[in-house]
Amino acid sequence: MSDDSILITGASGFTGQHACRHFLKTDLKVTAVVRNTCLEGLRSVQCDLTDKNAIDRLIKEEQPTYVLHLAGVNAVQTSWENPVSTLEANVLSTVYLLDAIRTTKPSTKVVMVGSALQYDPAKGKPSHPYALSKTMQSQVALHLAELYNLHVVLAKPTNLIGPGNSSGICALLTKHIVDMERNLTSEAFSVSNLQVKRDFLDVRDVVSAYEKLFVTGERTRTYDLATGRLVALQEVVRELETLTEVSHFVVDKKLGENGTVIPMDVSNIKNLGWNPTYSLRQSLEDSLEYYRNLEQA
Amino acid sequence: MSDDSILITGASGFTGQHACRHFLKTDLKVTAVVRNTCLEGLRSVQCDLTDKNAIDRLIKEEQPTYVLHLAGVNAVQTSWENPVSTLEANVLSTVYLLDAIRTTKPSTKVVMVGSALQYDPAKGKPSHPYALSKTMQSQVALHLAELYNLHVVLAKPTNLIGPGNSSGICALLTKHIVDMERNLTSEAFSVSNLQVKRDFLDVRDVVSAYEKLFVTGERTRTYDLATGRLVALQEVVRELETLTEVSHFVVDKKLGENGTVIPMDVSNIKNLGWNPTYSLRQSLEDSLEYYRNLEQA
Repeated sequence: MSDDSILITGASGFTGQHACRHFLKTDLKVTAVVRNTCLEGLRSVQCDLTDKNAIDRLIKEEQPTYVLHLAGVNAVQTSWENPVSTLEANVLSTVYLLDAIRTTKPSTKVVMVGSALQYDPAKGKPSHPYALSKTMQSQVALHLAELYNLHVVLAKPTNLIGPGNSSGICALLTKHIVDMERNLTSEAFSVSNLQVKRDFLDVRDVVSAYEKLFVTGERTRTYDLATGRLVALQEVVRELETLTEVSHFVVDKKLGENGTVIPMDVSNIKNLGWNPTYSLRQSLEDSLEYYRNLEQA
Repeated sequence: MSDDSILITGASGFTGQHACRHFLKTDLKVTAVVRNTCLEGLRSVQCDLTDKNAIDRLIKEEQPTYVLHLAGVNAVQTSWENPVSTLEANVLSTVYLLDAIRTTKPSTKVVMVGSALQYDPAKGKPSHPYALSKTMQSQVALHLAELYNLHVVLAKPTNLIGPGNSSGICALLTKHIVDMERNLTSEAFSVSNLQVKRDFLDVRDVVSAYEKLFVTGERTRTYDLATGRLVALQEVVRELETLTEVSHFVVDKKLGENGTVIPMDVSNIKNLGWNPTYSLRQSLEDSLEYYRNLEQA
């Protein structure tokens, strides 16, 4: 077994849980960084990432080879109500984390997880405080890495789907189907527009991309993580219809425009030899199974 | 007397002291916000601007009509050694301040003071953590103002000169001359290159520009504050030579290039009818007088 270790922040989240599972299969020593929860079957440490001293201690004690920084506030609505805690959780925690690495173990390789919702400061502006926070997080990480010669690779994942508890539109749909299967509701789930197109990527594929970025990702480069294929929500619904007995589980409110397509450039990650392996159908099926296997609250 | 009030953060600094003096002559109630020091002859409150609760209390108690936000860490060298405290002092304090205003008195008019050293995120990248912090400060202020409809005007002052304790090159030169006049040293002051050109603006003129920005500055617009005239350090030296008996007070090391000229676009502020009133000679003379009148340490 190697002496190499990986710290995974936000380990109790949707991606975090898959990341822990994935890296446990490698020869890395995995440490899950969590705020409150305890994770079964794995070494975890509690740390409030907005507490500078706590992060300094964490990095000093763990001396990680790799850090996958997934932690943060990840909700647009919350960000409107509390922009300060969103900026603290996403920007300040990143500053503290990178500074702890700079002063303690500057050779640590970091993958910073941004968001497809962040904007390009050269072109656009944020639509909400969450986008502001993720853009500032990426900017500060990029520039601290440049100024202090840190090994930081930036990732910008698209909409993630697959098994696990997520607040994404596909998870909400599959969860609703399972509620209908359980006769907990008979009402259809309202979506604003089924023509909206997104690039849906399986959460297990994104985790394999993060591993690729640790191994061959270029320092200070940003990698868009997506399949490269846009799918209308209508297509998701058609797949789901073949995976369940219930029908009429969705209603299209046909509100507003088709929405802006978020441009993703997958050439950087494809150049590293990474390719997604889960089909849309498989991801949706596994998501349905996840909710079907959950005990009712 | 009006009921309008102005809070001045960083009130004990070079610009802050002039700002207090300037606004005391208006009918505004002036409150100086300071971290440690007490300022004579003026109402001052102590507040650590990296303490969210302290800022919330400050804004609730003061209910200011105007806030001139001058506070922050203002030293390139310090920023290399401690990027975290620089980012906290410049970015986090701004987030806290604007959020306190948003939740308590969103009509407050704020002038955010940036720096000529900040970079344009559409074009460049920071040369040091100080530039990073000032750019992020301006960005977060601009976007929070846009997202929450706050009245924030952004100012980007050039190199400031004139009477008072400053760490700018002209202040260092005049202070050195006074040290030579007092026979405290006989060595010349080394500058890296006398051909370097800067746009030097008197600190009293910048304060009158801030007042102009409160009255007629456009929300979310950035105003470069400068004279519009570039002056080589050589010209500063020639002026100083006519203002002192000492000679050979400077030596040109002729190191490196002529330096990058920081582009300033004064059209926005000139359109508001503002013009600088102090000549370079007057600013230098007043700076010399300031140091001559200081008691020896």
